[in-house]
Amino acid sequence: MNVDYALLTDLYQITMAQGYWDAGKTEEEACFTMYFRDYPFKGGYAVACGMAQLADMVENFRFSEEDIAYLASLEAPGGGPLFSGDFLAYLADLRLTVDVDAVPEGTIVFPHEPIVRVTGPIMQCQLMETALLNMVNFQTLIATKAARVVRAARGRAVAEFGLRRAQGLGGVWASRAAVVGGCASTSDVLAGRLFDIPVSGTHAHSWVMSFDDELTAFREYARVFPRNCILLVDTYDVEQGIEHAITVGLEMRERGERLAGIRIDSGDLSWLSKMARRMLDGAGLTDCGIVLSNDLDEYTIQSILDEGADVMSFGVGTKLASAYDQPTLGGVYKLAAVRPGPGAPWEDRLKISESTAKLTTPGVLDVRRYYHGNGTVAGDMVFDVNRPPAGREVIVDPLDDLRQKNLSGLSFETLLAPLARGGRVVLAPQFRNACAARERAAAGLDRLDETQLRMLNPHTYPVGLEAGLSDRRRGLVAELRHIL
Amino acid sequence: MNVDYALLTDLYQITMAQGYWDAGKTEEEACFTMYFRDYPFKGGYAVACGMAQLADMVENFRFSEEDIAYLASLEAPGGGPLFSGDFLAYLADLRLTVDVDAVPEGTIVFPHEPIVRVTGPIMQCQLMETALLNMVNFQTLIATKAARVVRAARGRAVAEFGLRRAQGLGGVWASRAAVVGGCASTSDVLAGRLFDIPVSGTHAHSWVMSFDDELTAFREYARVFPRNCILLVDTYDVEQGIEHAITVGLEMRERGERLAGIRIDSGDLSWLSKMARRMLDGAGLTDCGIVLSNDLDEYTIQSILDEGADVMSFGVGTKLASAYDQPTLGGVYKLAAVRPGPGAPWEDRLKISESTAKLTTPGVLDVRRYYHGNGTVAGDMVFDVNRPPAGREVIVDPLDDLRQKNLSGLSFETLLAPLARGGRVVLAPQFRNACAARERAAAGLDRLDETQLRMLNPHTYPVGLEAGLSDRRRGLVAELRHIL
Repeated sequence: MNVDYALLTDLYQITMAQGYWDAGKTEEEACFTMYFRDYPFKGGYAVACGMAQLADMVENFRFSEEDIAYLASLEAPGGGPLFSGDFLAYLADLRLTVDVDAVPEGTIVFPHEPIVRVTGPIMQCQLMETALLNMVNFQTLIATKAARVVRAARGRAVAEFGLRRAQGLGGVWASRAAVVGGCASTSDVLAGRLFDIPVSGTHAHSWVMSFDDELTAFREYARVFPRNCILLVDTYDVEQGIEHAITVGLEMRERGERLAGIRIDSGDLSWLSKMARRMLDGAGLTDCGIVLSNDLDEYTIQSILDEGADVMSFGVGTKLASAYDQPTLGGVYKLAAVRPGPGAPWEDRLKISESTAKLTTPGVLDVRRYYHGNGTVAGDMVFDVNRPPAGREVIVDPLDDLRQKNLSGLSFETLLAPLARGGRVVLAPQFRNACAARERAAAGLDRLDETQLRMLNPHTYPVGLEAGLSDRRRGLVAELRHIL
Repeated sequence: MNVDYALLTDLYQITMAQGYWDAGKTEEEACFTMYFRDYPFKGGYAVACGMAQLADMVENFRFSEEDIAYLASLEAPGGGPLFSGDFLAYLADLRLTVDVDAVPEGTIVFPHEPIVRVTGPIMQCQLMETALLNMVNFQTLIATKAARVVRAARGRAVAEFGLRRAQGLGGVWASRAAVVGGCASTSDVLAGRLFDIPVSGTHAHSWVMSFDDELTAFREYARVFPRNCILLVDTYDVEQGIEHAITVGLEMRERGERLAGIRIDSGDLSWLSKMARRMLDGAGLTDCGIVLSNDLDEYTIQSILDEGADVMSFGVGTKLASAYDQPTLGGVYKLAAVRPGPGAPWEDRLKISESTAKLTTPGVLDVRRYYHGNGTVAGDMVFDVNRPPAGREVIVDPLDDLRQKNLSGLSFETLLAPLARGGRVVLAPQFRNACAARERAAAGLDRLDETQLRMLNPHTYPVGLEAGLSDRRRGLVAELRHIL
């Protein structure tokens, strides 16, 4: 889908751009950090996502003739054109020249650490902000929700099918993010085509209702789709629906075919699944699986399985595709350093706030993830790439100076990887592939402790600022408070 | 934006389509009704939206060569191609021939009444289902949320600026829906261009941080945008920010310009707005307005105004663009009648369910809205267009037969209007215009009673089935239960 990324922004980014241009700051460089402050869903981790679309944006960012004509038509509230003709001519020729670094999709990430870093002319950094936040916030949210749902399903396949309740076209990227988070497939055909992810689906109640009776509807479906036959049994009455499905399943078996499953989409799913299993087994259809759906999320799936329900797979829609219990991730994109031009030294920038949680971290930042000898994670260190830790490797909790952890001597990896250099995407194809990102997420979750994966009140993972960076930040706050 | 509406669907719609095609049901006609069951946000009304995009879909619905190639590449879980070549050849030539009727955007609507009705070949009706629900559910949700927020603002302008926290590209249509619901403008430039709605915005904290000091940043902004100057005063310290804004405001006045306002984006907005008003007035800047933002919704706005805060306008982001407290509207699209071909009589269809609330209503449905002599609404009647009420005009609550209301003798209007005929859009241009829909919504809300507009526990508006339709439905349920 061709998206007009240049206009997918807040108007103030473009007014600020004209301001930078007019104030002669076009060459000034900035470094922005994108991060979020709170664990989504009160969980213990997040699954990063949205970087493939970010690469798409960097590749396709330009103001079209129509865009420029539209901007030229805008009037200032006080009268006259909002934008000057010279500035719009400049915009029409603008191509991104920024460097972008980001964690690969599927990386497990935590609050207060950089997920994306954008470096380059401040105007370009700002023009990218809104779209970048829009895609990374939302897709990370959904990938995280999917990981929670998939974990609750304990190895059973989860199909995402929330498009009809998703928030508009966002649903197409939600489907992709759901796969990154661990879903086996999506019902969303457009996402399947655009992102090369598995699609699945059989039939709805209306198929049954369009025939004079349920048995005929089932027979017809089995006739047309002998190799993809899952029958929805709750249009009129579940017990009778299962009986009809058994009739058709036995007829299929006689023809050398197989009824792959039945789906139950209403009622008490745990109770009905056990009844269905008894009925199917009683008829000899032990290889016919049971698919459950209807307003599921990680909590209902956990409860259904805790009760010993017999389930082959789950279909999860509304609550996954919309992240119903927390529909936004509050990720932010903050100015962290400036310099007068390429090659000049960076100068820290900080936004003070009444609340410590909203204090930003200055510098050109990256993250080191440290591991214990057994391969499990030990802690994450946010550090300034221009002043990497020397000597002891200690992290300091950004919200509480007294909480510190010594990670010296442990092995580590650095999380941010180049996504674009000088405006050109350098991300390798395997880092844009959703199924590869799904493997990355699964491997990352495997390295967390069981207590960090807990659904409620998980063990908090240590993420801190490198001790020297923490000192610099504290000094800068004191300095800014002083000059105020 | 070119959207591939044909693939913006669940896979099962296309497998069912092949089923209908293979079962020789290509000519069979169906009538589907779209409606929702519960008031969003525990409120007393909803504002219909999404019909302009629906018209766009009807106009542009076709399977492209790439779509067909993608579908041909899909394999059945049991092996072999999922779709037959003959069926895909049929799909490639398919053009919609359906009739679509819908309430105009901005119409005030209630649970259990048809918002959209689609009539035509059952396969086409199904192929449209997912995208139709996606757009009408989401946009109606956001237009309704916006109407609540705007009402809470009591005449002050509300600007929507939630794109960075919106659910991906859905945000672009959220911006439009927010305007339909009553917002004065959006920050979303792409929505502004695509939908011809007002855009607004000035600058962010990063503008201030990019300069060595706040006063210089303010002066530069005022220099570049003398006719669009609203200064954000909370980057470092609100009180000092206001002082700097006053300095610049007085300088502007000397030049014959005007500081239009200041914006406060953190802290206790009510308290800070009063302090700001005192400071501005004390300096003689009585014509400088105060804009408030930061995680606002209808409840925080109500509370801020209840405390007597001085506010020119509000900026509302996250909680509006994502409908944070209820991120989906559970609208459904249900088969209500079938016939063997065009011109044949319609036969009722009904889906029974364990819960009365999920029972569907059969027939080719429309809605009459009745009015009292003073112009306020009296009640809505869902009726079958082929059997309009004769004699007494009585409505029966679909969830409780004992609740009835006699509307005989009152004036009424019929809500559904033609959107497409034979697959061709017939909707007049003014019905696709967001600002016209905003006026329609405002006029519709004016005709509700104050008690129906209440934010919490509003007075329930009477919506019922025409008495004859209610009888038919009860009979059909008994019949279906009997044959089960």
